[in-house]
Amino acid sequence: MNKKDIKISEVKNKYKYKGGRLLTSSIINDEVPATCEPLKEKNKLIIAPGLLGGTSASSSGRLSIGAKSPLTNGIKESNSGGTFAKKLASLGYKAVIVEEQNKDDDWYILKITDSEMEVIKYNNIIGMDNYEACKHLRKDFGENIGIIIIGEAGEREYPIATCAITDREGSPARQAARGGLGAVMGSKGLKAIVVDDENAAGIKYNDKDKFRATVNEWSKELIEGKEALTKFGTAVLVNPMNEIGCMVTEKSKQGSFEGKENISGEKLAELQEERDGQPSHACMPGCVIRCSNVYNDSEGNHLTSSLEFETIVLNGSNLGIDNLDVIAKIDRFCDGFGLDTMDLGNAIAMAMETGYLSYGDSDAVLELLEKIKEDSLLGRIIAQGVAIAGKVLGADRIPEVKGQGISAYDPRALKGTGVTYATSPMGADHTAGNCLPGREGFTKAGKANLDPHDNKGKIDLSKEMQIMSAMCDALGLCIFVGTNENTAEKSASLLTALYENDFEVKDIYDLGRETIKAELEFNKKAGISNIKNKHNEFYSNEELPPKNLKWDVDENALRNIFDSLN
Amino acid sequence: MNKKDIKISEVKNKYKYKGGRLLTSSIINDEVPATCEPLKEKNKLIIAPGLLGGTSASSSGRLSIGAKSPLTNGIKESNSGGTFAKKLASLGYKAVIVEEQNKDDDWYILKITDSEMEVIKYNNIIGMDNYEACKHLRKDFGENIGIIIIGEAGEREYPIATCAITDREGSPARQAARGGLGAVMGSKGLKAIVVDDENAAGIKYNDKDKFRATVNEWSKELIEGKEALTKFGTAVLVNPMNEIGCMVTEKSKQGSFEGKENISGEKLAELQEERDGQPSHACMPGCVIRCSNVYNDSEGNHLTSSLEFETIVLNGSNLGIDNLDVIAKIDRFCDGFGLDTMDLGNAIAMAMETGYLSYGDSDAVLELLEKIKEDSLLGRIIAQGVAIAGKVLGADRIPEVKGQGISAYDPRALKGTGVTYATSPMGADHTAGNCLPGREGFTKAGKANLDPHDNKGKIDLSKEMQIMSAMCDALGLCIFVGTNENTAEKSASLLTALYENDFEVKDIYDLGRETIKAELEFNKKAGISNIKNKHNEFYSNEELPPKNLKWDVDENALRNIFDSLN
Repeated sequence: MNKKDIKISEVKNKYKYKGGRLLTSSIINDEVPATCEPLKEKNKLIIAPGLLGGTSASSSGRLSIGAKSPLTNGIKESNSGGTFAKKLASLGYKAVIVEEQNKDDDWYILKITDSEMEVIKYNNIIGMDNYEACKHLRKDFGENIGIIIIGEAGEREYPIATCAITDREGSPARQAARGGLGAVMGSKGLKAIVVDDENAAGIKYNDKDKFRATVNEWSKELIEGKEALTKFGTAVLVNPMNEIGCMVTEKSKQGSFEGKENISGEKLAELQEERDGQPSHACMPGCVIRCSNVYNDSEGNHLTSSLEFETIVLNGSNLGIDNLDVIAKIDRFCDGFGLDTMDLGNAIAMAMETGYLSYGDSDAVLELLEKIKEDSLLGRIIAQGVAIAGKVLGADRIPEVKGQGISAYDPRALKGTGVTYATSPMGADHTAGNCLPGREGFTKAGKANLDPHDNKGKIDLSKEMQIMSAMCDALGLCIFVGTNENTAEKSASLLTALYENDFEVKDIYDLGRETIKAELEFNKKAGISNIKNKHNEFYSNEELPPKNLKWDVDENALRNIFDSLN
Repeated sequence: MNKKDIKISEVKNKYKYKGGRLLTSSIINDEVPATCEPLKEKNKLIIAPGLLGGTSASSSGRLSIGAKSPLTNGIKESNSGGTFAKKLASLGYKAVIVEEQNKDDDWYILKITDSEMEVIKYNNIIGMDNYEACKHLRKDFGENIGIIIIGEAGEREYPIATCAITDREGSPARQAARGGLGAVMGSKGLKAIVVDDENAAGIKYNDKDKFRATVNEWSKELIEGKEALTKFGTAVLVNPMNEIGCMVTEKSKQGSFEGKENISGEKLAELQEERDGQPSHACMPGCVIRCSNVYNDSEGNHLTSSLEFETIVLNGSNLGIDNLDVIAKIDRFCDGFGLDTMDLGNAIAMAMETGYLSYGDSDAVLELLEKIKEDSLLGRIIAQGVAIAGKVLGADRIPEVKGQGISAYDPRALKGTGVTYATSPMGADHTAGNCLPGREGFTKAGKANLDPHDNKGKIDLSKEMQIMSAMCDALGLCIFVGTNENTAEKSASLLTALYENDFEVKDIYDLGRETIKAELEFNKKAGISNIKNKHNEFYSNEELPPKNLKWDVDENALRNIFDSLN
């Protein structure tokens, strides 16, 4: 980005069978000086489809974006659906690596087609809402392009800024949300990347028939097995998480929410059926699960695309807001402005905790969004994320690990996910290994230890889920295909059919193990000690109603969770 | 503090010959869980005179205050002059340990006399300026008391809040300023500690004549050797530091200041002679160096007590203010409100760097102090110290190490002190081992390597100075007696005369070594890796005029500086 140079290189041998998060984390570990400042020139932004990216496998279109995070100061990967990964993979690119920094006052975009790759000066969308900006880009570069774009949050280098990725409708509705990767992109002077795969050569399969056969078999299983997700989206979790008592409510003072029925997946589906929205929608081409949604307002006009469980909880029950339309407005703001809804909701809770806003005051929250846009001081504080916002505003109950806010699940009542928050190389991030109940333990954890309230077996469970989640992230698969043995088996079959190479189930698990290994190596070099594998004290001191649970997982076990990665 | 209990214990054998910083750091390392949250109940606040505290040795009245720091999240000791240490030592107390937290809504003080120790509910000085509050305390507990007090900054638990210590006039003018120890005291619900030594038994000397003989000899040397300090105070450094080009100026963009003559020690002395102030003043009883001052305004009224070099630079040349009266007002505000002038000046520079204030605008700075008092958002941001203020305001040139702002010396042009900033267990803190030129290298560094601009020999020099400074801090000696072999020799003689024990020079050095060892141990347990022993990138990327120097000390050497402590 300093010289606006482009260099297209052959894939190094060691990266040949690496993709997605495994590839972004490996390149970061290999090439980024671990002690560098995340928003300075030595950091790199890496963008990579998974090993199955661009293929016809269902749910294989996740795009991994990685860098050293300005939020955690450690390694970060954040992945998302949308169309970009498929298009980039179809063009035969395994990764885009953005290096150094633009030093002039202009903003740039990167354009990728089958025949060219170009850095173009492009200032006319600066300060614009992402939805509007994407219209400009589509007008200039074709309706069919895939886009990664940062909003104003990324331009301003807020450490919870996202990289937005356009969906099949061209809306910047999918977010590589966590860890402030949008700020890293902003620090490079890169406003957007557009990819046009119109003349793409497409994916070359080693054994197309075998690949297709496995895809068909697996898709059938997914259609049958994921009915609830398809029907109600991720918000289907509202009721069961309430039941368990782990749904973050009232600034982490409750685990269940009185207004739960108004923010449930069932309610969302009902509203959107009435309003001609889409309660079920595929965020990426060819996904048979279709857990996304298109959310219309009460007039039937598009309000936002895909309202997810974590956004609903952290900006709903967490803030005392039991109105999906208000939460949808918050979500739409974040998509347009480029902010992580999770760290935002957590940070707003800190403003409520310290009296800057009233708990449950929707209007005040919507006004606060304007203050963020205006770059007011309160806006800037909130846009630092919950860890710093909590400190500056004077809160002493801050739900974060390694600088990143927790997700929608309170660790006291969903202990496996609590372990993941505490131990993931990425800070508190449920996607790194969410331990929802009902899952069958497949190795050490065992069925007996899957009671979400019980601390027993949760180290093993979280470790397994972290490895399996990283495995999906390396493959470019959505974790909703299942972080389990079946996914490993199917993926071994698919990769064998795709590449001129034999893959065993063990090789697939190893993708996850190698990912975490690279990330731990980087963090160690960055000075992030495993002593930071812990939750803040209020979780151990305050009981969480209604189940009255405390955080009680042994700190030494948290530190040592990755002593071995088997 | 939870039960307002007091327990008076015999000194443990292992602490018998520990004092000052060695004692506070040892107790913290032994008793405070290293991963605890600094402002929660598991942290402890330790207050200790040095091993020579209470004696007639010149400059031996430093009071060490220690805790886990809310600013650096590592161990911190901050020491100061004033009368408290002498009084506490005269009563025979080796340390005060404040544990747990007050849980009710009241504020408390601790009263210590020869016959009693009592926790007293005392709400009437809350929110009051420290000067005013100390008048109340003297009225209630006697004009002769020594006081440790936190200001509003400490009540609000700002992470750069100080513990103020009263001087011989009863003014809260001496500050244990760095690392936010005032916030720790505030988090305990403890507003002040008053000590009355009226009926103190006094110090029992093993060989009083020998002690007196050494004191007399040493005092004579000090009176002769420290003439410039006595005459002009620490501000005597303005001219030579300008000459070297290491005086922090214009938000770390310059190393010399055009307006230097207006803020020099010579100017200060001239002004105070005219105004009937005191250009020379002893901050603690019996100090023959008397580098402190009493600063009167242009009407001849008391404005502040002791304007020091670091306050002058970081709030003067750093902010483009060449007016000592303005700087004295800032200092007086900080003494009254209980804020570290160093992290404050650095943080204000960040507000100037990002356009919230104009460089050189004295009025805006004085208004900002009001905003801090009012608990406005900008005030809260600034009162977090430079590391967080810089982040929130969007600065990308932040002069801090491990969360604490640097002092008045730019590391690029005073490389030894730069090494100390980078490597001290306490974050950027010049008192941990200031490497001013002209000092004779006494072991490895050697005279040839003492050019402050040259990176050669600076690891050894800083290490030596850190050990010698810690040695002084353990003894309760002001570092101005000299961080050198003579101090070790004189101290060995004094301690042998004082205690029923023989001390060799090596034993005295070991006080310093053991101090740093305990601190490194604690930080390791707290997860603060030696990988954090580094400066921010702008020091390596930007040349510092007028000498055009960059930071160029090898990062590995910084990490490994304390591999051995010999």
